[in-house]
Amino acid sequence: MKTKNFRPDWTEQAPPAGSFRSIAKYGHPDRFKHPSDAWVRMMKDEFHLTDADFSKKFDEGHAQVALNRAPALKPEQIEALEAVVGRENVSRDDYSRVKYSSAKTAEEILELRRGIIREVADVVVHPRDKQDVRKIVEYCDAQRVPVTVFSGGSSCNFGCRPCRGGVSLVMSTHMNKVLEVNELNQTARVQPGLFGPAYEDALNRAPELFHCRQRYTCGHFPQSFEYSTVGGWVLTLGSGQASTYYGDAYDIVFSQEFVTPAGSFKTLDYPATATGPKVNDIMKGSEGVFGVLVEVTMKIFRYQPENRRFFSFMYPTWESAVDASREIMQSEFGRPAIYRISDPEETERGLALYGMPGFVDSFLAFRGFKPMRRCLCLGNVEGDRDYARLVARKIRRIARKHGAMSLTGYAGRKWEHTRYTEPYMREDLNDFGILIDTLEAGVTWDNLHRLHQNVRAFVKSRPGTICMTHASHFYPQGTNLYFIFIARMGLDEYVAFQKGIIDKIVEYGGSLSHHHGVGRLLAPWMGSHLGREQMAVLRALKRHFDPHNVMNPGGQLGLDEIPARRAGSKE
Amino acid sequence: MKTKNFRPDWTEQAPPAGSFRSIAKYGHPDRFKHPSDAWVRMMKDEFHLTDADFSKKFDEGHAQVALNRAPALKPEQIEALEAVVGRENVSRDDYSRVKYSSAKTAEEILELRRGIIREVADVVVHPRDKQDVRKIVEYCDAQRVPVTVFSGGSSCNFGCRPCRGGVSLVMSTHMNKVLEVNELNQTARVQPGLFGPAYEDALNRAPELFHCRQRYTCGHFPQSFEYSTVGGWVLTLGSGQASTYYGDAYDIVFSQEFVTPAGSFKTLDYPATATGPKVNDIMKGSEGVFGVLVEVTMKIFRYQPENRRFFSFMYPTWESAVDASREIMQSEFGRPAIYRISDPEETERGLALYGMPGFVDSFLAFRGFKPMRRCLCLGNVEGDRDYARLVARKIRRIARKHGAMSLTGYAGRKWEHTRYTEPYMREDLNDFGILIDTLEAGVTWDNLHRLHQNVRAFVKSRPGTICMTHASHFYPQGTNLYFIFIARMGLDEYVAFQKGIIDKIVEYGGSLSHHHGVGRLLAPWMGSHLGREQMAVLRALKRHFDPHNVMNPGGQLGLDEIPARRAGSKE
Repeated sequence: MKTKNFRPDWTEQAPPAGSFRSIAKYGHPDRFKHPSDAWVRMMKDEFHLTDADFSKKFDEGHAQVALNRAPALKPEQIEALEAVVGRENVSRDDYSRVKYSSAKTAEEILELRRGIIREVADVVVHPRDKQDVRKIVEYCDAQRVPVTVFSGGSSCNFGCRPCRGGVSLVMSTHMNKVLEVNELNQTARVQPGLFGPAYEDALNRAPELFHCRQRYTCGHFPQSFEYSTVGGWVLTLGSGQASTYYGDAYDIVFSQEFVTPAGSFKTLDYPATATGPKVNDIMKGSEGVFGVLVEVTMKIFRYQPENRRFFSFMYPTWESAVDASREIMQSEFGRPAIYRISDPEETERGLALYGMPGFVDSFLAFRGFKPMRRCLCLGNVEGDRDYARLVARKIRRIARKHGAMSLTGYAGRKWEHTRYTEPYMREDLNDFGILIDTLEAGVTWDNLHRLHQNVRAFVKSRPGTICMTHASHFYPQGTNLYFIFIARMGLDEYVAFQKGIIDKIVEYGGSLSHHHGVGRLLAPWMGSHLGREQMAVLRALKRHFDPHNVMNPGGQLGLDEIPARRAGSKE
Repeated sequence: MKTKNFRPDWTEQAPPAGSFRSIAKYGHPDRFKHPSDAWVRMMKDEFHLTDADFSKKFDEGHAQVALNRAPALKPEQIEALEAVVGRENVSRDDYSRVKYSSAKTAEEILELRRGIIREVADVVVHPRDKQDVRKIVEYCDAQRVPVTVFSGGSSCNFGCRPCRGGVSLVMSTHMNKVLEVNELNQTARVQPGLFGPAYEDALNRAPELFHCRQRYTCGHFPQSFEYSTVGGWVLTLGSGQASTYYGDAYDIVFSQEFVTPAGSFKTLDYPATATGPKVNDIMKGSEGVFGVLVEVTMKIFRYQPENRRFFSFMYPTWESAVDASREIMQSEFGRPAIYRISDPEETERGLALYGMPGFVDSFLAFRGFKPMRRCLCLGNVEGDRDYARLVARKIRRIARKHGAMSLTGYAGRKWEHTRYTEPYMREDLNDFGILIDTLEAGVTWDNLHRLHQNVRAFVKSRPGTICMTHASHFYPQGTNLYFIFIARMGLDEYVAFQKGIIDKIVEYGGSLSHHHGVGRLLAPWMGSHLGREQMAVLRALKRHFDPHNVMNPGGQLGLDEIPARRAGSKE
């Protein structure tokens, strides 16, 4: 049978209501993005699969969620919570308890598909406003009931797992509004459970909704944009795809309001201040362990999509792509918004997967851009029109100097088109026993090649493992490396393999996480990565804010112990 | 006698060796900058002075420093410190003890001129390297000996005063080297006691000194540049005059190495990381209360002075200058480097003091730029040549739109020429009983006018008080207001007056400090400004790093009690 005629029976139906799959599936239940024929060809080639291997699905997770674990909370405790938020905002059914205890970690997904349930919340609470949150935190602190915050639920590192049970506090049900757009200050005050698209839409329509003179953008577009929330961006230190221009979530936060067991406070609104260590910054990245973010004021930016221009280049080598990128980031003519370079394996697979007319490929080879050496760069410029033009022109000039050939804006626009939908393919791959996951690290320029080579060497030492790497968030001092792994691999093997990769990242000087946060997946490495003294600082803050360890306890950020069987742990 | 023929007998001699004046005087002992004739005219007019008032100097501080206080440390403690750093690096003579316990706070200076000595160190220690610092901190922690860090000594808020005695640890004597320039990462690793000019010179000469391919700049040029150190910039959260482009000290720090009673550590070198709250940021602005900064890696920038272009404009009103500045900062075409706008009083006095040809003044008035309404704006652009041109062009366009008239780059270049020498005038003013001081605050755009008007109203309610205000550090979300006061006023009156101004800054929503830090001067307001909860966070960190309160104790940052007679305190 010719491959190109064969098409696996990709699932096209929303998961059954109440099923494990309905929790595990990424994104909207009725939305799908299936691997292309080229994807299927690649997987067959790499993993030595036949059409037959793509005919039987397994671990689809169609079973109904059944927990059969009585809540550890006493009835009067649940009643007390109901008294705060109303009965309609407290759930204790099996499905809710599992759903709001799960996020999108590869391991979580694979276990859910098998019907395996790990630690779950005893009760799910949906606060209506910050007063609710304050009462809940006070009550839970007094009663020593753990509180784990759930918002978008897109964590890929067990960030939402209630490892000690208790309450799952769902921020996105009610606390998801834009409260104010301050046009003079160019800030927006929002609730933490606000999802990306609703936020961006409100800013784009600021004249209609908030009587503003201009349209605005949030400037933060992670791949999870559609299913992540502003609060999550801030608390896990996310980076958007245009972060090279707009900054990381860390940079975009203006002020925050927190409810903690040690009290509630709002940091002050100043563009800069010299009044000692900045509590506003201390709270960023706290991943729920200090308290609950109940309001956040974000910097916003002018919305000027008409000035966007895409570019793409082919570089002869990875080294030339890195050198050019460094020169671009250090030359002080401004910065591109989206900016990505793919290593040779990602470039080659990208060309095969996303298509390039044959004659272009021949032309590239003819011009000396050799497969498995050449590297794709793509991105765009934003901001003021003349500024964007200048930045684009400068990038073109530096690219040429480093031997690159312009491929026009086509590749960039094509990439943008699917920027949020790639994660949908995971369901299809998992259906046929193929695992896909990612790890990523921040790195300085002087350590980039060493980290890239060594992590890749480890990953590729396992036969039949695809490893695609790109750098996608740039700074004058360095960038990140984002590793994507695809392999036909069982879960247990993967857990060990993943541990090996993280070991290599830490060993070769990458940051433990560039923008995925720590959660419980990376927690076991925090001590060796940051060192005893820095961990002691985080623990001192934890003791201050949450002396009874009720806020997101059970390993988050490596501050306390992770329950025994925690995959990714070093035991 | 015609004013223009009269010239006060400005002091032109270096202060006598060993005198109070030699400690109080700003900058190099042999350098002076005297008030111009126009300055004298202004002071005569405003303060109703005659030539006679400028003929008798008082409180010149020519007396020899004599302390007559035995060190509170035991001889064996001093010997132990000598054993660490060598006898030659421990001083206990009166002069050293006073000198290294004093900085440049207005009140400090005026008291020194009168021979008044407040709290001083028992002994002055000059560590040679970070190993010395570690041993000293360990020893002092064990012995409960206070350690106050002294580096450049340019604090204007009692930041260097050893309020509990003990050791004054002088970082600038030996620990003042550039250790490494990492050209790939565009970073420089330096010792904290490195002064601005030595740092900038080393970076400018990076090809000769460090085999770099490019020349670099530090990007940080506070008015105190010549007499402040890199460590001080970081620990007090300074801002350079070109901060609108390069960022504040906070933004320019890449990583830090600290010695604290709780242990020594170096934060990691990453352009970004998502591994929880950033200890690197927690340490910035800690003003010596957590421990001692022993090494810091700073971001550096390409040195391209050939691309600098100055501009200056006259705006018809303060409102139009503010509106235009906001539009410039929010338009996303890049940013100017130096950028300042002066309020009407500063503009008028500036024109009178620094000279403008008469016909220009007539022309300005003719064109509707009326005295005490018009506002001067000046600045420059830096970075890549085309980028700098674009930013200059855009600024010009927005300025015109808001009714401004270009005054060419003349005023900017003239300002730059004297950018570091203005503080020298203080000696001359003080010699004739005239007080000059400054206070400053960060502020959002939507609160700028309210803060400006109310602080000014308070200051101007005192007859014969000059109040010049400018904004000089800009962000998309706001700016700072920098208030300069000049008056003929006694010290006691000033202390009360200053307290009133700070009250107004806090009452009307300015940040307590934009870039001067807190020290002990502003400490009494920290609680009401930040609130109980944020202060508790800072105190929790203090307890962690310095459980025995030996690091810069006695009120710094408002973390513990300030000794009873502390000017500026609210008692």
